Amino acid sequence: MTNLQSLKIAYIGGGSKGWAKSLMNDLALESRISGTVALYDINYEAANRNAQIGNRISNHEKAKSNWKYEAVTTMEEALSDSDFVIISILPGTFEEMASDVHAPEKYGVYQSVGDTVGPGGLVRALRTIPMFVEIAQAIKRHAPKAWVINYTNPMSLCTRTLYEVFPEIKAFGCCHEVFETQNLLSEVVKEFLDKEVQHRSDIKVNVLGINHFTWINKASYQNIDLMPYYKQFVEKYDETGYEKEEGEWKNSVFSSCNKVKFDLYKKYSLIAAAGDRHLAEFMPPTYLKNPETVAYWKFHLTHVDFRKKDLIEKVNHNEALIEGKKELNLVSSSEEGVNIILALLGVEDLVTNVNYPNKGQIEGLPLGTIVETNALFKYDSVQPVFAGKLPLDIHNMVSRHVINQESILKASLTKDKQLAFNTFVNEPLLAAVNREDAEELFNEMLDNTKSYLAGWDI
Amino acid sequence: MTNLQSLKIAYIGGGSKGWAKSLMNDLALESRISGTVALYDINYEAANRNAQIGNRISNHEKAKSNWKYEAVTTMEEALSDSDFVIISILPGTFEEMASDVHAPEKYGVYQSVGDTVGPGGLVRALRTIPMFVEIAQAIKRHAPKAWVINYTNPMSLCTRTLYEVFPEIKAFGCCHEVFETQNLLSEVVKEFLDKEVQHRSDIKVNVLGINHFTWINKASYQNIDLMPYYKQFVEKYDETGYEKEEGEWKNSVFSSCNKVKFDLYKKYSLIAAAGDRHLAEFMPPTYLKNPETVAYWKFHLTHVDFRKKDLIEKVNHNEALIEGKKELNLVSSSEEGVNIILALLGVEDLVTNVNYPNKGQIEGLPLGTIVETNALFKYDSVQPVFAGKLPLDIHNMVSRHVINQESILKASLTKDKQLAFNTFVNEPLLAAVNREDAEELFNEMLDNTKSYLAGWDI
Amino acid sequence: MTNLQSLKIAYIGGGSKGWAKSLMNDLALESRISGTVALYDINYEAANRNAQIGNRISNHEKAKSNWKYEAVTTMEEALSDSDFVIISILPGTFEEMASDVHAPEKYGVYQSVGDTVGPGGLVRALRTIPMFVEIAQAIKRHAPKAWVINYTNPMSLCTRTLYEVFPEIKAFGCCHEVFETQNLLSEVVKEFLDKEVQHRSDIKVNVLGINHFTWINKASYQNIDLMPYYKQFVEKYDETGYEKEEGEWKNSVFSSCNKVKFDLYKKYSLIAAAGDRHLAEFMPPTYLKNPETVAYWKFHLTHVDFRKKDLIEKVNHNEALIEGKKELNLVSSSEEGVNIILALLGVEDLVTNVNYPNKGQIEGLPLGTIVETNALFKYDSVQPVFAGKLPLDIHNMVSRHVINQESILKASLTKDKQLAFNTFVNEPLLAAVNREDAEELFNEMLDNTKSYLAGWDI
Amino acid sequence: MTNLQSLKIAYIGGGSKGWAKSLMNDLALESRISGTVALYDINYEAANRNAQIGNRISNHEKAKSNWKYEAVTTMEEALSDSDFVIISILPGTFEEMASDVHAPEKYGVYQSVGDTVGPGGLVRALRTIPMFVEIAQAIKRHAPKAWVINYTNPMSLCTRTLYEVFPEIKAFGCCHEVFETQNLLSEVVKEFLDKEVQHRSDIKVNVLGINHFTWINKASYQNIDLMPYYKQFVEKYDETGYEKEEGEWKNSVFSSCNKVKFDLYKKYSLIAAAGDRHLAEFMPPTYLKNPETVAYWKFHLTHVDFRKKDLIEKVNHNEALIEGKKELNLVSSSEEGVNIILALLGVEDLVTNVNYPNKGQIEGLPLGTIVETNALFKYDSVQPVFAGKLPLDIHNMVSRHVINQESILKASLTKDKQLAFNTFVNEPLLAAVNREDAEELFNEMLDNTKSYLAGWDI
Repeated sequence: MTNLQSLKIAYIGGGSKGWAKSLMNDLALESRISGTVALYDINYEAANRNAQIGNRISNHEKAKSNWKYEAVTTMEEALSDSDFVIISILPGTFEEMASDVHAPEKYGVYQSVGDTVGPGGLVRALRTIPMFVEIAQAIKRHAPKAWVINYTNPMSLCTRTLYEVFPEIKAFGCCHEVFETQNLLSEVVKEFLDKEVQHRSDIKVNVLGINHFTWINKASYQNIDLMPYYKQFVEKYDETGYEKEEGEWKNSVFSSCNKVKFDLYKKYSLIAAAGDRHLAEFMPPTYLKNPETVAYWKFHLTHVDFRKKDLIEKVNHNEALIEGKKELNLVSSSEEGVNIILALLGVEDLVTNVNYPNKGQIEGLPLGTIVETNALFKYDSVQPVFAGKLPLDIHNMVSRHVINQESILKASLTKDKQLAFNTFVNEPLLAAVNREDAEELFNEMLDNTKSYLAGWDI
Repeated sequence: MTNLQSLKIAYIGGGSKGWAKSLMNDLALESRISGTVALYDINYEAANRNAQIGNRISNHEKAKSNWKYEAVTTMEEALSDSDFVIISILPGTFEEMASDVHAPEKYGVYQSVGDTVGPGGLVRALRTIPMFVEIAQAIKRHAPKAWVINYTNPMSLCTRTLYEVFPEIKAFGCCHEVFETQNLLSEVVKEFLDKEVQHRSDIKVNVLGINHFTWINKASYQNIDLMPYYKQFVEKYDETGYEKEEGEWKNSVFSSCNKVKFDLYKKYSLIAAAGDRHLAEFMPPTYLKNPETVAYWKFHLTHVDFRKKDLIEKVNHNEALIEGKKELNLVSSSEEGVNIILALLGVEDLVTNVNYPNKGQIEGLPLGTIVETNALFKYDSVQPVFAGKLPLDIHNMVSRHVINQESILKASLTKDKQLAFNTFVNEPLLAAVNREDAEELFNEMLDNTKSYLAGWDI
Repeated sequence: MTNLQSLKIAYIGGGSKGWAKSLMNDLALESRISGTVALYDINYEAANRNAQIGNRISNHEKAKSNWKYEAVTTMEEALSDSDFVIISILPGTFEEMASDVHAPEKYGVYQSVGDTVGPGGLVRALRTIPMFVEIAQAIKRHAPKAWVINYTNPMSLCTRTLYEVFPEIKAFGCCHEVFETQNLLSEVVKEFLDKEVQHRSDIKVNVLGINHFTWINKASYQNIDLMPYYKQFVEKYDETGYEKEEGEWKNSVFSSCNKVKFDLYKKYSLIAAAGDRHLAEFMPPTYLKNPETVAYWKFHLTHVDFRKKDLIEKVNHNEALIEGKKELNLVSSSEEGVNIILALLGVEDLVTNVNYPNKGQIEGLPLGTIVETNALFKYDSVQPVFAGKLPLDIHNMVSRHVINQESILKASLTKDKQLAFNTFVNEPLLAAVNREDAEELFNEMLDNTKSYLAGWDI
Repeated sequence: MTNLQSLKIAYIGGGSKGWAKSLMNDLALESRISGTVALYDINYEAANRNAQIGNRISNHEKAKSNWKYEAVTTMEEALSDSDFVIISILPGTFEEMASDVHAPEKYGVYQSVGDTVGPGGLVRALRTIPMFVEIAQAIKRHAPKAWVINYTNPMSLCTRTLYEVFPEIKAFGCCHEVFETQNLLSEVVKEFLDKEVQHRSDIKVNVLGINHFTWINKASYQNIDLMPYYKQFVEKYDETGYEKEEGEWKNSVFSSCNKVKFDLYKKYSLIAAAGDRHLAEFMPPTYLKNPETVAYWKFHLTHVDFRKKDLIEKVNHNEALIEGKKELNLVSSSEEGVNIILALLGVEDLVTNVNYPNKGQIEGLPLGTIVETNALFKYDSVQPVFAGKLPLDIHNMVSRHVINQESILKASLTKDKQLAFNTFVNEPLLAAVNREDAEELFNEMLDNTKSYLAGWDI
């Protein structure tokens, strides 16, 4: 029996500016569980500031539970006796991220995010995998029975690494991209059926694919099959794109008009279930030929300068919170982390999408690779739900990325530069770059991240 | 979009005395759906009487919905335009069943049910498979999109036959044996945790195995792991057996004291999740050596004479109902059929155990064979939940029955008497019978059922 | 017991100008078997001319056996009572082939063969699959027990189609490309070990991959591992290329200097075991950027005009043979067809490479797809030899083509133009063509071959 | 390149009285290879005596090669720099073997060999597996690249253990039982076709199953399918049995009249390809009910007293050899070890049956378990040949033993007595023993072998 009032959560990457606060809010607003959150970060100061914010949130008058936050100085300290481990780290700094995202631009290769696939995603993975090797070893040693929730990108490879190092780990990866597609389907229901969907989770979907390149082949609302309505929706909006309020997409670098999603539907007849800026990176450079093309498709390149500026704002905002200069607003995030924790504690079962080793839930993809499908969460248990198989044309695109990811993992673990490069040139985004240029680019990018590549011959 | 107020259910075996009435009651008590039930039976009169009962139930003052029952004369008529097909037939008559169950007694082989495995289950299967071939062909022709729910035994082989003949069928098999184990676990909660479980479905279990030889390797209630408590429970009651009220087990041929279940736990460390009289038949004749042994283990042999008598009572009772001599009591059964129908209509998602082709939900059992695990039911969709693998010792016993079932199917489809007999002697219940006696018995049993074995060389 | 002196071989495509004559020669030179060859061709005249040549060969003074050739007018006549079926057809005419090979050149896409993959291979497959559906149905009806040897390209898809239509067929595909690699390895032995290899089959290789994109990960001669020597060989010759006599490669459109093969070794560390002009088509357009690039890599584009001219020469030559104006030279080809036939007749076991459904001989590729590995041929039996798995980077490239081939088959059988096009744009050779141009090209090529695409919506 | 004149063979169990001498003879008679054999045994003296014999054989005037034998005192010394490792040990002494074979007789359970399956085989396995764990670890450390040939029983479990401990090991198991079946088929050829088969290897067979319970579903000689002739042969001889010279079977405890083999053919329609005394142990106690039944089936129980006596004779004979009191006769054995070594050295390819991890060569059996099929041996390479699947009835029997073996391995590695016992009672030979008796027997047998079961709770 787990005592719901004295849980311990270890937060690796506890200095995080974004996810940490979402979690703190959601925990504070959930009355059924309480306990301690140990924040560990290689930047202790950042973790400590988050601890202060966390405790302020916990003491907020609207808080329904009792959570204590503390920054700790070692991973061991965080992990020991923990019931849950959350991993949300920034692998490296914005300097390496700038190289990941922008170095390829010299060769006409643009990336909208650069953290999952493409040249940026690959190099980020090479930097991140050794960190996850270390984390997995620490969990094996200090918290082998804890549930581990990963939020770090590249999601699939981070989760895959955890299992490679410690096969008995109880880990999975969470991502909110599918939620947005459920929200979009709620709009479809509104538009064609004139009904207001209460919560996105009332839109039932069958999810299959890999993180950020996830697909939906069945969608329903109550007793209504939504697939024909989505088709109509695409036909209506594929030229203009769709957004709730006109022009809204221009306000945020993370927004789009779903034109890429609609175009993929027209080509492949399934619903692509991630944001346009993620989807575009898995395809040949159709949507990312150059900034003008991106604008035509009504989504954005996420410049790392923007991220740097954004971070400063968040830091300042947090500082103000700590100093009491700003008021705390207790609002629940749209994340599902706390619901999942509740389900794993036996409080309330949950079916939702998750990144998890393939046990056969997707037919035709190699067993053991990390795939995204629905799963049933209940007391001390995650069980993927059989999702079926992708149509052959989509399957081929997904399979290529899945095998690329296996290659990257192997290249990282064996420090095999030839394999890493062969995988690099097999990224669809690099389809139009010739091999010589690709090699130059690869070497430059590796050089920029080499302080994280101990033991490589660079 | 499915219109919930004008559904059509086809009931194959619509003259059934038991299941049909449970369904009628459950439909009447469910306000959210209405429609027509077409009852088809080779005995039209029986179907017609059920139609009259059904309509009486439907008109009951407490009925919350509007269902119309009608007996039809052809399977086609029943199936056409149906949304759901329910199959609950008696394959053959009580004469053949008497042979299945009692012929082996001459050789010291006792069977508590004789409809699933063992000599009786095997011969019953040979008789039933051709009927299911016919049903599957009719569904393929007249109702290829309908959801098909099978209640007929042998459950696994009936469902397997449907898929063999029509691989695109949307069929599964339902059985309530696991529910009783959840009820037993509710007693465990009461006894050791002093809590009253509201509904058996609050006991969460991971189900894996095959119908009537199903196992549970994880059980929980809220945030409580029940496995250690079940161990204590077994230790306390394995000698005496457990029942709610002392001596109760003697009152019904279907009752037991769970001593077989407890013994299996002691030997194999998992919870066997079916009634003792089913479990015993999957094992070597430990529990079924002779009537005295059965009494020692506190369960019953179900004599076919009892079934005959019981049927007469039911028929009389139904007659009285039709003639208005008896009052109708609208009570919900403990079956889940209507909940499953609701889930498939998108009204309310459901996770429950089901018999379904193995897509990998049980590791190590052949793909395509019918296994029993949990599944997620939602709008127009059944998705098995990944259940993991059985411990090797149990896996070997289950695997033997699974391959036997594949053999029986093949023997039936190709009318291969040698294969049928080789499978017969491989039934664990026949372990102590020598091959010559087994052959004599086999020939006798086949002879008794030969009018259902067209084309066999008997 | 098969009578080795009265065999019947059915030759589908019996008007063939090339393969047919090789077979005739090889049969004539093999003393242990005799019988009849029935030549069927949609062009009866061509078959008839071949029959005349065949009988002349058979009557040659050096002939060691007694074969009778006859042209027949129906496939049924050819197939009935046959022990072996050989399929070697030209799907369509040189007009369609010209479109396959040259239409893409307008978009900067050059193909060296155009019959396996790439835009040409794909469209050729769409044209050929319906023919193989028909052949498979005829074999099922008239010669279900015969061994079927396919020589037609696209090899994998032709063989795959035979199994799709008639799963019990005893078929496989033969190709001589690996032999050339064994010959090249014989040169390696000569160069570095100063030994003369008697026959290429003394070079033992482990073959794995798909037809024309086959790889060798182990090569030996007697007790000598050849892999390190091949490495040295590549290092020595990768700049200049290797040929037995300098400048020789220029004399034949089918020749090359192995520079592509060497370059692939440098990149992937395995021996690519097919001719350069085939290998190049499976890769992104590195080696086929334009005619100059092709010249740089020292291989050739095979222009269809050349094929037309070549055919006329062959026809004239054959005419002269028939009319007795030219003398017959009985020389054995380097093909293995007759050795395979001998093995299947129990005369002499053989291990050689073959195109066969994947039973697991290549780990990680889907079961049932056609792969190329070694197999053991003996009396009435072909058994693939377990070949292991490809390195991840090569596996990913091979896998992409394998799934493309599954897509093409499905698109052909269901006449699904969207799927066909999505597969088309996924051909590596088209990596640099944008989707709009690709669509234009696809439509043009389909239009050029539409008389073979009955039922398609073009 | 391997130098064929300075090979090193490590012989684990080098004091062996039987296999060692066969090998010495075969090596002496093979001119193409020479080198050193290091004999290691826990009984150094025995190894030393064998070294003396070996060197005498090597110096024999008819010897065609030059082998030097030396006894060594550590496994490391034997393994270091070895090209081949041969394992042929006696696990424990005749005392434990006597318990394995005869203890069950008190319960009416007779075993003809007691070293593979049945109660004796299981307990022997529990004793042997820890020894093979140690050997595997030593090979991993000192000879990771060497080819390892196992001759020890239980063959499957010994080989399986090697792979479990050191997955990269290059090991397989050799057994001559299939050879005897080829010899029997040669008799069939003589009898019905009046032809003399030169060598048993001219009888081509497709082998599938597990060691000592191996089956043949295809057999041919030249262009003749032997299956119909075998059927006739069984029909002719199943009553009397078959032997070359009448009464011969009585002269040796290892002989039989093939009546079990014939009976299995009548029941299952495939050729069982092992000696009767092995086959009988895999079945329920049909053939081993009691000594009279064994006599009826015309084979023998191998009493351990016989083995003891036989050993003394061999020891005396060897002593006489060493002392020069007996003359050496150089005769080749019928074993294939040296041919296999030649094939692995690239001297001559070989296809023969072998015990090897299932890579898919037998469909339907779990990957990684040790199965027996044909394999292709060539330079530094063993490749199983795809053998297909067993008929369902045989498959079920084989599968039961395969899973039992996995259970025994796991029970041994985790010292899990419950699992070991559950597997024990699942042995077909124990089908008629009740569980209480079985437990008594199990405890007695374990007790008798407990000095080899370190760490078990007995």
